[in-house]
Amino acid sequence: MLTIAYDGTDYCGWQIQKNGLSIEEVLTKAVRKVTGEEIPVWGASRTDAGVHALGNVVTFDTESTVPTEVFARALNTHLPDDIRVRSSREVPDSFNPRYDGLKTYEYYVLNTPDEIPTERRTHWYVTYKLDLDQMRKAASLFVGEHDFASFCCPRTNARGTVREVTAFDIRKEGDLITFHVEGTGFLYNMVRIMVGTLIRVGRGFYGPEQVKEIMEAKDRRKAGATAPPQGLFLIGIDYPALA
Amino acid sequence: MLTIAYDGTDYCGWQIQKNGLSIEEVLTKAVRKVTGEEIPVWGASRTDAGVHALGNVVTFDTESTVPTEVFARALNTHLPDDIRVRSSREVPDSFNPRYDGLKTYEYYVLNTPDEIPTERRTHWYVTYKLDLDQMRKAASLFVGEHDFASFCCPRTNARGTVREVTAFDIRKEGDLITFHVEGTGFLYNMVRIMVGTLIRVGRGFYGPEQVKEIMEAKDRRKAGATAPPQGLFLIGIDYPALA
Repeated sequence: MLTIAYDGTDYCGWQIQKNGLSIEEVLTKAVRKVTGEEIPVWGASRTDAGVHALGNVVTFDTESTVPTEVFARALNTHLPDDIRVRSSREVPDSFNPRYDGLKTYEYYVLNTPDEIPTERRTHWYVTYKLDLDQMRKAASLFVGEHDFASFCCPRTNARGTVREVTAFDIRKEGDLITFHVEGTGFLYNMVRIMVGTLIRVGRGFYGPEQVKEIMEAKDRRKAGATAPPQGLFLIGIDYPALA
Repeated sequence: MLTIAYDGTDYCGWQIQKNGLSIEEVLTKAVRKVTGEEIPVWGASRTDAGVHALGNVVTFDTESTVPTEVFARALNTHLPDDIRVRSSREVPDSFNPRYDGLKTYEYYVLNTPDEIPTERRTHWYVTYKLDLDQMRKAASLFVGEHDFASFCCPRTNARGTVREVTAFDIRKEGDLITFHVEGTGFLYNMVRIMVGTLIRVGRGFYGPEQVKEIMEAKDRRKAGATAPPQGLFLIGIDYPALA
């Protein structure tokens, strides 16, 4: 099991695609170089184009005699500097990184018209005045088990749209607004649509109570625009079974 | 007078060059589009390739009737998103941004082997254990008026090598070490060579007292390696005459 970090800016996302370079493709090639085996890798989260990770989780099955903890360093010599393996460890054969993980995402908004170019790849600049209290009230409505059909890109083939969000906090420090979201599973674009909807609440387009109505409508068109990818970070995935 | 910010990663530095795109070239083209005049721009600091700015200062002389404070917005529509004009104002004809400014630089080191790809364009990763106390003692020796010939790239044509550093603080917060440097003038590569030398002190190659000897030697070869450009930010330039 690898814990990996990446700057998603120059990739078409996690998943291998015909048109564009993916994290999965680059990582698979590095794993094949180190192991000498034609094996696939399994990613826990298929992040979108432009989305970053501090702790996505990847597994592969190998016969290699390379000590498990040496894999991180060995793989990093074959990876570009925008993809880094932070750690490597052995896990049981039965472990599937797609299941039973508690995921933490953070979305970073800079709430100022004064755009700093070095921040633009990792933040969404929102220039409007935002009402944080209203946004926090609305965010609390996401916590719990709900049908998130309204907060899901319709181009999805996930089984069902009920998911559980276990925490949703909004923190402010200077111009930086951090949306901290935890849950056991997320639909395609779900965090970004929730953030986009909360920004509408913050701008006063509608109140927190309408977020409940949007959720009940189970209709993507009722929710706000999808927040852009560059502000989203997959912070980490915690697997209670591995603790 | 423009206050500009940029991500220097994809530029060959401030100054126009034959081989590569410079900040100066991109900004000059934008100014010519907005004013309709074939005029040059004057930059306060000729930052190197890969070095960033939050507040470099640029002036130009124009007959344009565009209101001074509107220039920032007008120029930004003609600039790529890695160069932003943060503000624009009118200054007296006699004002020359190259002189009499108090410059503030910061250099960011992440002192951990755990490289985060989204930080790599704006930080230098130093994995060695560092002795901050020794580094702070050495840094204090830079403060004051000194001959900085040992801390200057020999490919320079600056008149003289005596400069005044008015502040040099080293701050630590988690893995982040910030070198905060203020002064009225800096030689070519001076901040990066001072930082590279302080890292040698922190690693225990030599003690703070040797920094004094290095300074007195007036020989670039005595000082440490030049720290890489991506950690350096020109934070801002303060002109007492404009206050």
